[in-house]
Amino acid sequence: MSEPEPDPQDPVAVLVRRGERVESRHRVAYAVADAGGGLIQQQGDIRTAVFPRSAVKPLQALALVESGAAERFGVSERELALACASHGGEAMHTEIVAAWLARLGLGPSDLECGVHAPSHAATAESLIAAGETPSPLHNNCSGKHAGMLTLALHLGAPTAGYSQADHPVQQRISADLAAMSGTRLAPAAIDGCGIPTHPLPLASLATAVARLTDPGALAADAPGRAAACARIRAAMTRHPELVAGSGRACSLIMAAAPKVLVKTGAEGVYVAALPDRKLGLALKVGDGASRAAVVALMGLLTGLGALDRGAVAALAELAAPLLRNHAGRAVGRIERAPGWPCFVPAPSDHPQQA
Amino acid sequence: MSEPEPDPQDPVAVLVRRGERVESRHRVAYAVADAGGGLIQQQGDIRTAVFPRSAVKPLQALALVESGAAERFGVSERELALACASHGGEAMHTEIVAAWLARLGLGPSDLECGVHAPSHAATAESLIAAGETPSPLHNNCSGKHAGMLTLALHLGAPTAGYSQADHPVQQRISADLAAMSGTRLAPAAIDGCGIPTHPLPLASLATAVARLTDPGALAADAPGRAAACARIRAAMTRHPELVAGSGRACSLIMAAAPKVLVKTGAEGVYVAALPDRKLGLALKVGDGASRAAVVALMGLLTGLGALDRGAVAALAELAAPLLRNHAGRAVGRIERAPGWPCFVPAPSDHPQQA
Repeated sequence: MSEPEPDPQDPVAVLVRRGERVESRHRVAYAVADAGGGLIQQQGDIRTAVFPRSAVKPLQALALVESGAAERFGVSERELALACASHGGEAMHTEIVAAWLARLGLGPSDLECGVHAPSHAATAESLIAAGETPSPLHNNCSGKHAGMLTLALHLGAPTAGYSQADHPVQQRISADLAAMSGTRLAPAAIDGCGIPTHPLPLASLATAVARLTDPGALAADAPGRAAACARIRAAMTRHPELVAGSGRACSLIMAAAPKVLVKTGAEGVYVAALPDRKLGLALKVGDGASRAAVVALMGLLTGLGALDRGAVAALAELAAPLLRNHAGRAVGRIERAPGWPCFVPAPSDHPQQA
Repeated sequence: MSEPEPDPQDPVAVLVRRGERVESRHRVAYAVADAGGGLIQQQGDIRTAVFPRSAVKPLQALALVESGAAERFGVSERELALACASHGGEAMHTEIVAAWLARLGLGPSDLECGVHAPSHAATAESLIAAGETPSPLHNNCSGKHAGMLTLALHLGAPTAGYSQADHPVQQRISADLAAMSGTRLAPAAIDGCGIPTHPLPLASLATAVARLTDPGALAADAPGRAAACARIRAAMTRHPELVAGSGRACSLIMAAAPKVLVKTGAEGVYVAALPDRKLGLALKVGDGASRAAVVALMGLLTGLGALDRGAVAALAELAAPLLRNHAGRAVGRIERAPGWPCFVPAPSDHPQQA
């Protein structure tokens, strides 16, 4: 490897305690940006590009709507929510994707996402108990892939190979990601579901997510963009259970705080959009731990005042999960490190000097 | 929390790459010690106490042998290996533990370890397919708990409550741990299986493991100790498949390198003993990731010259695991960071000055 390896000294943000003692610690970098690309808050390395993984699914869904593909193929709001989802493979997810594919004249074998057991444990166990094996429909990305197949049909491109970087579907999606993030994209690696994943600095990722709430100047070049962003926001907000699933953090947070959009990505990534304030947030746990990403996200949303008292109470277990051992006894807790996040006062917080 | 939170700047030791780019990074602290407590190699914070979790199972088994309980109750070498195990809950594990308990006149309901699904996936699926639920026998610690029940009977103590800190079984085991590590034990927290887990600095943990290979001076106070250590080493070495299970790192390493003893612990801990050189090794991944602990262990064992060429080849996939996506395509790799570990030359490596 000729590339020098950065050693980002991101702050310790999340502690895993056993009893009162710290057992493990997680470092987190985050950026909060406005739609103009201005940084509102930040800690840690937000300039080195990181893989956003599934956190950009709402951005990857833009082309589906903006191209006219969604309208032409009658994509419903629920289907659009699933295009933005990392779902649990529950029946409420797979049935919608299956019907969507059938309407396109396609089937599960056209999905190029590969197969894994449903992440929803009870569904996975039901499959095993029934002697069935999972299908590509159960892949957490099957809705996104159904959306990409829809776009391929709309573009008149072959459906086979839609997941490859040189396919018109991926080319269009990459162009959207570059525009929304305001960056020239670095070369992609391959995501868990076979599509390209372009690394982005957290600052740029936060900007891209902020623009989901207000594409602003970008709408001049892409007249349908503001409407597409609004449709994506509405789909996620109205169907939080489809964006992840039963008991999953994304779904629980959006159900409790309908004015917040959140989306997780593998290896400790989270993004959030605050449409009321036209802000975007992006975080990455340096070691890739999902358990820390949720706790860090909750800390940031709380610190930003994005959650009302009811949501804070409803989501307390996500903010500081209790750890129980195999006998059900409470043995520890995951929680924010004292003093994290450390927000810089916004300019308006400084009283003007006389 | 009044205790100040240390922020150990352990070096980045393990990288998770997607394509060529680093996606996530793990920090690791480690100590290599001799049986006299001398430090041979170290990096990172080896003075702050960490929870060794299941990595101390071979040390926790000392009392079972040394007290005479193992001899009195006819504990076999296979059973002793299981007392040192975090096993996968495969039939080869649960059948031995079940027969052991039956010989004691006890049963699975006497185990206080709680229940979890077998970590061996195929066994877990077989249970579900058969409509069965896991029992305490499937708990990865059931062999250790069977050993503790054996010790309780031998000591004439109640079997109920043997997992509690004030029970004679745990008192005796804690005393052994203090003696072997040469420390006054800090207060325990509760382990995943309900027993006390005492935090130890990595330097002390490495020393304790080194003494498994040569209890030395300790044997004067505890005449049976050297023999007990030898029996434990033999049990683990001769039955590596019982110490973890099919496809598991501990078993694979000990099968490929019979002169090395290794044992994992939850939250990114590993210990190794090198009986030929009377050395002990202890490492902790700061964020608790098991995936990094194995890669770090392999790097240290290789660096110490503890693996011959055949073992290095047989264990290549543990040293730098390939990451495949759900479609089976290679998308990345977990590997040591360049330059890690950084060993200080041993005194004998320095040519004597004339």
